[in-house]
Amino acid sequence: MSLDLAAIRRAHERIRPHIHRTPVLTSARLDAACGGRLFFKCENFQKVGAFKARGAANAVFALDDAAAARGVATHSSGNHAAALARAAALRGIPAHIVMPANSAQPKIRAVEGYGGKITLCEPTQAAREAACARILAATGATLVHPYENEDVMAGQGTAAVELMEDAPDLDFMLCPVGGGGLLAGTAVAAKALRPGIVVIATEPEEAGDTARSFAAGHIVPLEKTTTIADGLRTTIGKPNFEIARRHVDRVVTVSEAEIVAAMRTIWETLKIIIEPSCAVPYAAIQSGKIDVAGRRAGLILTGGNVDLDALPWFKK
Amino acid sequence: MSLDLAAIRRAHERIRPHIHRTPVLTSARLDAACGGRLFFKCENFQKVGAFKARGAANAVFALDDAAAARGVATHSSGNHAAALARAAALRGIPAHIVMPANSAQPKIRAVEGYGGKITLCEPTQAAREAACARILAATGATLVHPYENEDVMAGQGTAAVELMEDAPDLDFMLCPVGGGGLLAGTAVAAKALRPGIVVIATEPEEAGDTARSFAAGHIVPLEKTTTIADGLRTTIGKPNFEIARRHVDRVVTVSEAEIVAAMRTIWETLKIIIEPSCAVPYAAIQSGKIDVAGRRAGLILTGGNVDLDALPWFKK
Repeated sequence: MSLDLAAIRRAHERIRPHIHRTPVLTSARLDAACGGRLFFKCENFQKVGAFKARGAANAVFALDDAAAARGVATHSSGNHAAALARAAALRGIPAHIVMPANSAQPKIRAVEGYGGKITLCEPTQAAREAACARILAATGATLVHPYENEDVMAGQGTAAVELMEDAPDLDFMLCPVGGGGLLAGTAVAAKALRPGIVVIATEPEEAGDTARSFAAGHIVPLEKTTTIADGLRTTIGKPNFEIARRHVDRVVTVSEAEIVAAMRTIWETLKIIIEPSCAVPYAAIQSGKIDVAGRRAGLILTGGNVDLDALPWFKK
Repeated sequence: MSLDLAAIRRAHERIRPHIHRTPVLTSARLDAACGGRLFFKCENFQKVGAFKARGAANAVFALDDAAAARGVATHSSGNHAAALARAAALRGIPAHIVMPANSAQPKIRAVEGYGGKITLCEPTQAAREAACARILAATGATLVHPYENEDVMAGQGTAAVELMEDAPDLDFMLCPVGGGGLLAGTAVAAKALRPGIVVIATEPEEAGDTARSFAAGHIVPLEKTTTIADGLRTTIGKPNFEIARRHVDRVVTVSEAEIVAAMRTIWETLKIIIEPSCAVPYAAIQSGKIDVAGRRAGLILTGGNVDLDALPWFKK
């Protein structure tokens, strides 16, 4: 395992021309509400609308020319698919994307828009992996897994590096955990830059595999979940779990209602569009589960790809 | 009339400690859609969620100590009320705010939250003015009109100054027009800094008084309107119209559907919350009514105070 700050810094140099340096927002009102100082790293403003642009770009531009020429492949229904298609287009190489046939139309269109070659499959993990394996065998493409990939983790870790440059002396670093790509990169970067920082992983109670895995000392796979935080409906990956065990201090879970309330507070107060997964770290603060009074906390806001026709406060 | 660049620069120095320097966002996707380059000045991230924080702060901090001690007053149901209450609180002086009794509760709470002294009145212009006149007579407070006030106009003009610093060489400057406080400050600043710039006022067809007034050569008052752009349901003010006639090149009107479509495009693409009034300049571009192909256009996004329970794409 070679994920360290040097790898994250190399990733940063590599991807800098291809990503936004996203802003860090603050709010006097949200600070007053929690008694601390909060620094929101706005990856919802990132290319493709999510931090996933970082890891995908790093994985694509880290390939040597011969491997790159054969293309890249992944199976994903979410932001990673669009991010990988975009990165491949920037390098001028093919991107093979396996997506479940029931994926949301906007997600399929986003991948198509970046020129990705889509293979639709049955919506099961086995079907996804089989379709992907066939493509790898036929094309010689490189698999870029959404999170069990060191180049991806290193790329995701660059958001924390930028956040800590713009908001020094943080006492806490909060990020959501799904598969754990962002968490691994964030935790390694944060602890290397500031060993005393407290790194907290946050996840929905209804997708609480990382909390249970920390408690058990081994990965406890996620049961079927319908959490509104659709980006986090994933069991933490093996390498991600190993890194998290070494560098993450705590895992905090939040309820569905707490996620929706936090999402709405951020929309109304920061005036930015964030997706439900993205509200999970702030939900842990707003609900009082993390006490940041008198302290400085960095929160990574992961993405802003929301279906505006299906906002949670209109459902019932 | 002494509104000039020097007055706007003095306003900027005066209010700098009390406002955000808001970011300027760009989008490769929106640029590709229009063929030009768009620079969005995000006053939705401003204090109180709107550019109104600028003009109100300038008016309050421009007062001499004796006048300030007697307080300030206004009649407004919108963002100016909250902005004036906030500015007065920062200076430690009273703010008397006359609001129609049917104002939205969040707006009343916002004024209360800043410590404003609220007087509710009947929802007519006559009742508002009478209530305000009684307060002025009783307290000696200074009236700070939402737009027919040079200090307010000068403060609003500081947003354009910042935008032109961050996005040089603009060919176009677009802003919405309601009472014309923002328009006056923006037009004077833009033409002084870059005489060749084309300044375009944009407004809803359903509140098209400025377009009609330009055509007639005199103010044609607005009939009753229910445009979704609720911040623009105001006839342009007298001094504002005189300034606009000298410095504004064109007035462009957009339909209700064009406003909603533009609002949604900005939410989805820029990932920011803007209110309907704020979408009007981009609506003029998205609808093809302003051709910016190959040119650079600055757009002032005026505010982000939206009722998330009443989004236009959920109405029918």
